[in-house]
Amino acid sequence: MKRERAEKELEITLERAEEALSARKNLMLNSVVQGSTFPDLRGKCAEIIGKMDFEVYPIGAVVPLLENYKYKDVVDIVMASVANLPPSRPRHLMGAGHPMVFALAVAMGCDLFDSAAYILYAQDDRLMMPTGTYKLKDLSEMPCSCEICNNYTPDDLKGMKKEQRIKLLAQHNLNISFAEIRKIKQAIIDGNLLELVEQRCRAHPYLLDALRNLKNYTELLEEYDPEYKNSAFFYSGPESLNRPEIFRHQKRIKRLPQKERVLLLPSFKKPYSKTIKNILTNFGREKEHNLENLGNFYKINDETENRNENDSNDSLQIAVVDVPFGIIPLEIDEVYPLAQNEAPSSMDEDSKKFVRDAIQEYIENFKEVIISEDIIKKFDLSVDLENFDINNLKLNFDDKEKIKYIADYQFGGGAGKALFYGDIHIVKSRKTGKIRHVYDKNELIATLRASDGIFVLSLCGAKRLHDHLEYPKNRVVVNSDAEPFAREGKSIFAKFVIDIDINIRANEEVLIVNENDDLLAFGKSILNSREIKDFKIGQAVKTRKGGK
Amino acid sequence: MKRERAEKELEITLERAEEALSARKNLMLNSVVQGSTFPDLRGKCAEIIGKMDFEVYPIGAVVPLLENYKYKDVVDIVMASVANLPPSRPRHLMGAGHPMVFALAVAMGCDLFDSAAYILYAQDDRLMMPTGTYKLKDLSEMPCSCEICNNYTPDDLKGMKKEQRIKLLAQHNLNISFAEIRKIKQAIIDGNLLELVEQRCRAHPYLLDALRNLKNYTELLEEYDPEYKNSAFFYSGPESLNRPEIFRHQKRIKRLPQKERVLLLPSFKKPYSKTIKNILTNFGREKEHNLENLGNFYKINDETENRNENDSNDSLQIAVVDVPFGIIPLEIDEVYPLAQNEAPSSMDEDSKKFVRDAIQEYIENFKEVIISEDIIKKFDLSVDLENFDINNLKLNFDDKEKIKYIADYQFGGGAGKALFYGDIHIVKSRKTGKIRHVYDKNELIATLRASDGIFVLSLCGAKRLHDHLEYPKNRVVVNSDAEPFAREGKSIFAKFVIDIDINIRANEEVLIVNENDDLLAFGKSILNSREIKDFKIGQAVKTRKGGK
Repeated sequence: MKRERAEKELEITLERAEEALSARKNLMLNSVVQGSTFPDLRGKCAEIIGKMDFEVYPIGAVVPLLENYKYKDVVDIVMASVANLPPSRPRHLMGAGHPMVFALAVAMGCDLFDSAAYILYAQDDRLMMPTGTYKLKDLSEMPCSCEICNNYTPDDLKGMKKEQRIKLLAQHNLNISFAEIRKIKQAIIDGNLLELVEQRCRAHPYLLDALRNLKNYTELLEEYDPEYKNSAFFYSGPESLNRPEIFRHQKRIKRLPQKERVLLLPSFKKPYSKTIKNILTNFGREKEHNLENLGNFYKINDETENRNENDSNDSLQIAVVDVPFGIIPLEIDEVYPLAQNEAPSSMDEDSKKFVRDAIQEYIENFKEVIISEDIIKKFDLSVDLENFDINNLKLNFDDKEKIKYIADYQFGGGAGKALFYGDIHIVKSRKTGKIRHVYDKNELIATLRASDGIFVLSLCGAKRLHDHLEYPKNRVVVNSDAEPFAREGKSIFAKFVIDIDINIRANEEVLIVNENDDLLAFGKSILNSREIKDFKIGQAVKTRKGGK
Repeated sequence: MKRERAEKELEITLERAEEALSARKNLMLNSVVQGSTFPDLRGKCAEIIGKMDFEVYPIGAVVPLLENYKYKDVVDIVMASVANLPPSRPRHLMGAGHPMVFALAVAMGCDLFDSAAYILYAQDDRLMMPTGTYKLKDLSEMPCSCEICNNYTPDDLKGMKKEQRIKLLAQHNLNISFAEIRKIKQAIIDGNLLELVEQRCRAHPYLLDALRNLKNYTELLEEYDPEYKNSAFFYSGPESLNRPEIFRHQKRIKRLPQKERVLLLPSFKKPYSKTIKNILTNFGREKEHNLENLGNFYKINDETENRNENDSNDSLQIAVVDVPFGIIPLEIDEVYPLAQNEAPSSMDEDSKKFVRDAIQEYIENFKEVIISEDIIKKFDLSVDLENFDINNLKLNFDDKEKIKYIADYQFGGGAGKALFYGDIHIVKSRKTGKIRHVYDKNELIATLRASDGIFVLSLCGAKRLHDHLEYPKNRVVVNSDAEPFAREGKSIFAKFVIDIDINIRANEEVLIVNENDDLLAFGKSILNSREIKDFKIGQAVKTRKGGK
């Protein structure tokens, strides 16, 4: 469709939306996002109708694109639409009824699909699969685990009367569609929906194109991506480099304290810090750190800057370089997902380039860069080098610094200093040797959760963070109706929230305050800030005990 | 296991293999390929026991590797084993009972799996999926389409008595295992098993490592890869660059006639030649070729060689550059899979590098290289360029040359000249405009199959090829018992084959001869040469009609 016509039709859509609203009585209404293949028109339409009071927002006119495998364009259209629709209302991807697009569509923010495909495909003797479509005539084997595929052969079906065959094929198509929906729900719970999408999008090169196109929407996807998950991050190919977790990490390492010198180490078995300490002491056989165990090192010779040679060791940042997260400062190597991720040992070229770029960007801010020979070789780094004797360094692993880094990474720059002052006392797990609790004398400030390495605040910690972080940072602001409930430690419902830090994601540790910014309680966000603002039902924050 | 111990145990295995054979009566026997994690020992073991008369060859001692997700090592072990085992005997991958490895194992040449996993996993409250394992306790939704997953919720199962639950989970595990086996069988028939493997290997980064490791065995995999398939080649990621089809193409373009100059064009909609002709004539609106429609061009300035500027246009090779096949000389652009493939429009870095390397290698043999600006930009080509006025060229699209190129590509260098001499007359399809038949006057030499663009010989064509190609090229040699059947056009059974061109793959056009190299018939190979030599049962060649 040409733009002019798309614009005209969009106007009609908007007119009718208003008409429909004025004519509604007790009807539930939907209003369709239109705008053809023009993302800006889709966005405009979504924004306008999104502010009106409809129950469901279908995204229309994608059938011709789906039929022509133009999944890449579908991504542009859907993302432009959902970015401007209210997150509390379901979105129906009109005409999408094939399970091969369900996971991708859900990852983009669609909730409803068409229900006619299963029977239309059956009438055409076609079997839907999450990996594509089979024509019955081409099948020698039934391709799925469902009751129909288990009990009939393709020849059985081919030999049947059409009516009976359609019934059975429709049943298969329904079985596989519902199974895919269940699998998607489970993936959302497990926090690995994008991994399912990455698997599904291998079914056709044009789906892979769509997946690759998602990289243009990482920022929006990151907003809806919970901060901490039950499942590890699995790398499945270059497209995994565009996942929200990696984007988030790249942003967050900028929150950490800046030192003058950096030592870049190659990757070791995770958690890196533990392995590195082991290697330095020949796996515990020596007391002194033997730096030569880490391999050969060079200093990067950057003639554009006059590096100061007299810096003390106290100002040395140690960081590991690895795929896919790039630079991992050693202090935060156990924070999710930096320890909870797996990538293949054999690298693809995109990973190599991605990490090389990450190194280049990271080292810009240091006066002196000492780098492992392994890294230079592995990532084809072309930098001017001079020999460096690693024994000149003294490595410090300071737990008090580590907890501050983790807090900065988790809550924002300066949070570490704000939380951990006074007579800091760190309690470690006897079994694992990991940091468990941080006290100021006898008062608990925060507990480091073993599963994902992030801090869960105590009341003292919440108070300190509240004192330090400027409004509205990390705040969920509730109205006076909700204040007594919040003070009692009851969960916060979305409808009582009157303001919120827009940077809050799901599963984050947040502060609950009233309009005067008095700290009422603290807890874990269940939704992100956009959702909390928009939802009129359901919980927004699960309040932690000990908040009274 | 240390090498010394592995060597000792291997000796015991070999001793016992001989003992077992001497003690056998009517028993069917298997002999296990051992050799721990040392591929050379595995290869040696397989070679020795492979020459003995066992019915099944299990590949042993992989369980610890599978349990530790060391799939990459499993690839090395299995490939070293199967490379040396007789292709006619089934191979059992001992201890492999999880459907997530079935597709990979089958692609490597394994035929049998363990049958205990389904119940062992069930007893442990675990659900097997081709994409991994779910613990029942972690499930909120049943993840598959089977009868159990359709009729019960995780809570139903959790609430049952253990005995009943195990029974149902075992049923699910069986359903999913058999479905995966059926899916693999269908993929073999469709010719896209490696695509299924590429999908499955996204389930875990260590499986992806294993998939990437397959690139070290492309040569062997290519031998067992049928030449022509029903399905298109779908690119699913950088690992697809290691597929046999691409390796084969890289080898085969070396068979084509070498010209002095080359014009490298960017990719267009497939088939390229048709689109390019359309573009040159402004989609049919002009008769003359307007070369400017193809974009800007440069000449590569290679100072190391003194290119001859006076070459005639007759010696100009036109080729398209595309992902993933690299260089596609325009004459063969409709031969499978050069037209029958799809890749995403957005390129990964591995594809870029692969094609860049292919260009560099290809242009080495030309005195003059004219290259599209699009190609230089798209593939980051760093070459010394000088402006080139494309209007100085005259493009010829010569069908008589085209058919020779196709024959060379298909049968080997020089086949085109051998087949297509005399009063060559080309008949095209009225509907599609594609070449269909090639005659010498009234005698049919060959037919170009529309589905995959390869030549099917007539008797005349077979005779010409037989005259031209030196023994044993393209031959399947049958013994005197089979000679009369072959002459009658009956299919050739493997047990009658006494010699064969080792380069023959499945689905290839072959010549059937007797010991004196008299042409008896011609047809299509059903197996590859190794298989035909080894099998004592079943068909080897399907003879074509018209061979008498």
